[in-house]
Amino acid sequence: MATLARIGEQGFIDLVARLARPARPRPVLGIGDDAAVLALPPRAQMLLTTDLLTEGIHFRSAYTPGLLLGRKALAVNLSDIAAMGGAPHSCVVAIGFPRATPLERARAVARGLGAQARRHRVAIVGGDTCAARSLFVNVCLLGLVEPGRAVRRDGARPGDSLYVTGRLGASAAGLAMLRRRRRPRGAPRSAVTRAVRAHLDPVPRVTAGRALGVTGLATAMIDLSDGLSQDLRRLCDASRAGALLEEAAIPVSPLALSLLGAAGARRAALEGGEDYELLFASRPGHQPLIDHLARRIRLPMTRIGQVLPRRQGIRILTRDGRYRDLPPRGFEHFPR
Amino acid sequence: MATLARIGEQGFIDLVARLARPARPRPVLGIGDDAAVLALPPRAQMLLTTDLLTEGIHFRSAYTPGLLLGRKALAVNLSDIAAMGGAPHSCVVAIGFPRATPLERARAVARGLGAQARRHRVAIVGGDTCAARSLFVNVCLLGLVEPGRAVRRDGARPGDSLYVTGRLGASAAGLAMLRRRRRPRGAPRSAVTRAVRAHLDPVPRVTAGRALGVTGLATAMIDLSDGLSQDLRRLCDASRAGALLEEAAIPVSPLALSLLGAAGARRAALEGGEDYELLFASRPGHQPLIDHLARRIRLPMTRIGQVLPRRQGIRILTRDGRYRDLPPRGFEHFPR
Repeated sequence: MATLARIGEQGFIDLVARLARPARPRPVLGIGDDAAVLALPPRAQMLLTTDLLTEGIHFRSAYTPGLLLGRKALAVNLSDIAAMGGAPHSCVVAIGFPRATPLERARAVARGLGAQARRHRVAIVGGDTCAARSLFVNVCLLGLVEPGRAVRRDGARPGDSLYVTGRLGASAAGLAMLRRRRRPRGAPRSAVTRAVRAHLDPVPRVTAGRALGVTGLATAMIDLSDGLSQDLRRLCDASRAGALLEEAAIPVSPLALSLLGAAGARRAALEGGEDYELLFASRPGHQPLIDHLARRIRLPMTRIGQVLPRRQGIRILTRDGRYRDLPPRGFEHFPR
Repeated sequence: MATLARIGEQGFIDLVARLARPARPRPVLGIGDDAAVLALPPRAQMLLTTDLLTEGIHFRSAYTPGLLLGRKALAVNLSDIAAMGGAPHSCVVAIGFPRATPLERARAVARGLGAQARRHRVAIVGGDTCAARSLFVNVCLLGLVEPGRAVRRDGARPGDSLYVTGRLGASAAGLAMLRRRRRPRGAPRSAVTRAVRAHLDPVPRVTAGRALGVTGLATAMIDLSDGLSQDLRRLCDASRAGALLEEAAIPVSPLALSLLGAAGARRAALEGGEDYELLFASRPGHQPLIDHLARRIRLPMTRIGQVLPRRQGIRILTRDGRYRDLPPRGFEHFPR
């Protein structure tokens, strides 16, 4: 079987360069020099983020096609730029490939990166391809935002409403299916396929983030990568605020419901992570504007609670009408 | 022994944030949100590069102190910005740590990154810290350059002189000492120490690169990461030119001479790599200006040959007066 050695580091770089070609905006100088050269619009501020996918931690090669790995590596970074209300612009990609990586797999990763870049009009302007002991893909993505308009985590105020885009829990349900390797009794095959897709090929909410940013509708925003309970706490901590979530209002993914049951799906929505939906706060009077925006871009935006003074902590009103503390549960890279 | 689990991902992020604090320029928003926000000068162009160090390929943990690993991870990126004639500005850092990484080692990596950032006034504005199967450090560095003044690889013209900064071969000599694990007979201990230092803690030629760029003295430039013979070919290929090197003129490191002998040192200078000196081309009349600049910044800049028309290929005039082809020899990540 052909491995990466057939084309070598330079061959892989050429491949990415070819696949990334149609991207706009065009860099002044792209792949192939010591650094890329970019001309940026004169009055924009710049956003910079980096996000990493590592074998055995973020994904297992056994169930992650190279194409989707490439797409996801860019998607998780697009999600970060979206959560700042920015427009993605250009990126560089650093990949560590084990020496025995089949050439077809390396090509598929490049194709996935290129496809996602074209879809979001991001230019891949450089990178570093190295041998490594286990596979990882790191993307560093640059975005633009109007000066002073970046949506930070720290702008939520007591009285603001809390919203999420889309529906939560499908990614966790997909991961559970991948781990379990067999379908739960009675679960429709198409639900499994779609949940697995939600996990392996998340859709970053770039249009929604951008719209919530430029309109000034979002006072604070974060993308849901580590799970609602953990990411809500991050937003609240940055804003020095508390919050009350209404469990009955949380839009649980129907895929999660059909695959994990009601209790499992609710937990997946709260703690599952990797949904890459946006959590944001908005002034109380803005509900009609948010409804309008949601219809316009055809993405649900659901009010799930409100921001409270910090001393009230972070709580959840459960379906059976009780108030409970909401501990931040989700993924920790270095568990004790 | 305490591992990273004692402080966790967030603890490590806080540590980097604290160590990176005094850096200038200050970002509008640094570590701790979904992306960093940067305000850039209105008329600059931007440079973007990423470079990766992976365990077992670029370094072995057994002989690489965490502090120097952190310094080098940033140095190799600074070297890329220098080779474009740019000024480094801000960076993000993605690190994969094995779960069993001792806390002290993780702290040392953070300290090394912070120290190098402060030294070159680079702001560390974000990053991603993940568990991984083997250690790697990836830096994505952003630089600034006056519009149209980036020094590319493709500007060399027949008749230009070729120069290198500093002396070559010390890094390869240091690596040989680390691999051999014992001192060659008669070699002074201090030479070993300094060669090892050259390998583990290279000094990026940021001031030289910047000076050669803003003055317009360099028509093409590249940093020597993979070895003179390979990087010269890259510069020539990009410029559609040939070259003649004069072997007797190549400034071989005295450390390499004393540790590897004359023949070994010459090979190290030509093929060794990781010296992170700059190779550049300059118009023939500019020798006095380059001499002046070299004295001014106290860094040797040695004329080692000239650019030729492409059809003449890339050759070397050996010490014994013969002309030979110069094959590109150096590191390939995916050897056949």
